[in-house]
Amino acid sequence: MTVSLSPVDHRWMRLALRQAAVSLGATAPNPGVGCVLVRNGQVLGSGRHRRCGGPHAEPEALNDCQQRGHDPRGATVYVTLAPCTRHGRTPPCTQALIQAGVARVVAALADPLQDDPQALFSQAGIAYEVGCEAPIAQHIHGGWLKRVTQGRPRVTGKWAASLDGFLGPAAARQQWLSSPSSQAISRRRRSAFDAIVVGAETVAVDDCRLLATGSRHPRRVVISARGRLPVRSALVTSMNQAPVWLIHDDRAAADHLCALRDLGVGLMPVADAHDVDQVLQALAAAGCNDILVEGGAQVHGAMLAAQAYDRLELYQSSLSLGHGRAISNGPQRQQSFVPEIPPRLSGNTVVSHWLRVDGGGPC
Amino acid sequence: MTVSLSPVDHRWMRLALRQAAVSLGATAPNPGVGCVLVRNGQVLGSGRHRRCGGPHAEPEALNDCQQRGHDPRGATVYVTLAPCTRHGRTPPCTQALIQAGVARVVAALADPLQDDPQALFSQAGIAYEVGCEAPIAQHIHGGWLKRVTQGRPRVTGKWAASLDGFLGPAAARQQWLSSPSSQAISRRRRSAFDAIVVGAETVAVDDCRLLATGSRHPRRVVISARGRLPVRSALVTSMNQAPVWLIHDDRAAADHLCALRDLGVGLMPVADAHDVDQVLQALAAAGCNDILVEGGAQVHGAMLAAQAYDRLELYQSSLSLGHGRAISNGPQRQQSFVPEIPPRLSGNTVVSHWLRVDGGGPC
Repeated sequence: MTVSLSPVDHRWMRLALRQAAVSLGATAPNPGVGCVLVRNGQVLGSGRHRRCGGPHAEPEALNDCQQRGHDPRGATVYVTLAPCTRHGRTPPCTQALIQAGVARVVAALADPLQDDPQALFSQAGIAYEVGCEAPIAQHIHGGWLKRVTQGRPRVTGKWAASLDGFLGPAAARQQWLSSPSSQAISRRRRSAFDAIVVGAETVAVDDCRLLATGSRHPRRVVISARGRLPVRSALVTSMNQAPVWLIHDDRAAADHLCALRDLGVGLMPVADAHDVDQVLQALAAAGCNDILVEGGAQVHGAMLAAQAYDRLELYQSSLSLGHGRAISNGPQRQQSFVPEIPPRLSGNTVVSHWLRVDGGGPC
Repeated sequence: MTVSLSPVDHRWMRLALRQAAVSLGATAPNPGVGCVLVRNGQVLGSGRHRRCGGPHAEPEALNDCQQRGHDPRGATVYVTLAPCTRHGRTPPCTQALIQAGVARVVAALADPLQDDPQALFSQAGIAYEVGCEAPIAQHIHGGWLKRVTQGRPRVTGKWAASLDGFLGPAAARQQWLSSPSSQAISRRRRSAFDAIVVGAETVAVDDCRLLATGSRHPRRVVISARGRLPVRSALVTSMNQAPVWLIHDDRAAADHLCALRDLGVGLMPVADAHDVDQVLQALAAAGCNDILVEGGAQVHGAMLAAQAYDRLELYQSSLSLGHGRAISNGPQRQQSFVPEIPPRLSGNTVVSHWLRVDGGGPC
């Protein structure tokens, strides 16, 4: 219930949201909640949910407060998702906050999986408000929200295209279209996702490891009805760095699947691996909140045809190919997107981010 | 010969170049030269070549100087192209400057069609320098320079593409991909060109008048081997606003050509209208310095295959089509471009400008 949110509340909540943004891609299947404790304009402590199984954001912030030598009593708690009321892997955060003696709790979003903590907090004499900076929180926790409410991950499509709209040369060979600096951006971006998804063709042509920059690598997921994932591919041989999953159906050869399983590849059988909806359901069931689909042309075509993309990240190359592989094979279904941030140059590549709008015209 | 150019010289030359930029698209087959007269840090007069047959920039600037009640004696003349030495449609500008008693002449570029005015100016006791802000001048006068040195116009390709790289829906029907504000930009841009070039398919599908904003409209040129330009098309029926030319070969029906000619369409027969080189040669011979190729997919494919584009102006729509008309049919020949200016948003459309680089990698 929103009672009285001041501009100061919004400022502190944005600090908590910044914490949450850092945890994107690190906490699946959980949301990467952020939390800040404030009293008299001073930050007493802050925290974020860092990994599934670890402490929630609120105990992290209380712990940080204690370590800094502050007393949390009388503090206001800014948390990007309403504190949990039920015992899960950790004791309920509502209880921890009540015990810490905080005066007020401000949440950005209600938690659709938990009870409303309003009554508990009222009983304890704690003011509770929800809805502060909700749009940003919906954006940051959007993957998790979509998974728990719709049973699908949030899907971001990413590709580099030539000036004339091709994803690569006609021949099945690898060619970097985008600039080295934009490739670096693209690698860094991977760590904000729970899974990087590609088709068998991309594995065959590019044979990339699909790792992120730094040490936090998302799962690498290959969609291939026939299980076309060579045991000697860069993905499989780099399995010590991040998990590899294969989404296949019964067109895949059992002995090849056994060989992959023995090497540690996670097998995710579905009835029809060409059915985008089944693929997304399987990924949601496996706990992925945010997935990044990196290609190739066939997978992008199927995803676009299924209207699966919530967001697009496009890298427009400075190269014109004249001929090549284009996105295709989708039945004609138009979708409108809006720019998420202004486009920018990275090297000679134009990087643009787009959000889907449901309904609406082309502009 | 460059003797001594100061930062102040560069500043005044940029003022003259701004004059020249205004004349882009207005003076073909001439270059739209700009000129500024300066003495003791004061602009005495400025001028530009406004239209073919009108006075050159130097007499315009001298005239402006006189009208403002200034005496041009002892002034420095900044002119974007070396003053002409020969009698053309107008008496030589070198003579006019000598008669006006100016002290110094600074030119951005030498004129490849004229004699070097160095000797004439030396004889008259006038200091003469060339090469001031040459790169910008080469850019502004690039179309004219290319035509007089290579016999081809400078060619700019322009298209709007969907997020997934299509130029339009698969069915031959018109659909605006870009935002209204970016369409307005695109219409304004047309007046900086000597001709807007399209293929017969674009006439058939879009039936646009291809006019600019304002009163200065470029020629509209249709390339169609078979002369597919309907007499009732918007181009032909708007002929009172700007000329229409048809580039065709002997596959066109003679009676249809006669009908078009009687309506005022300029006929430009070539041996093979599918040969990009012949088309460009014909346009250069007709005096076009700068042409803007607006479509459609076939013409762009042919131009890219022939490596004809010096510049590209791309309008990336916020719409994803899933399927549609793509640029194609070119043999695979890669070309590198570099961003001319940073990309920007206009409505929901990302507008990017690119310059061809000869050689070099993808970034």
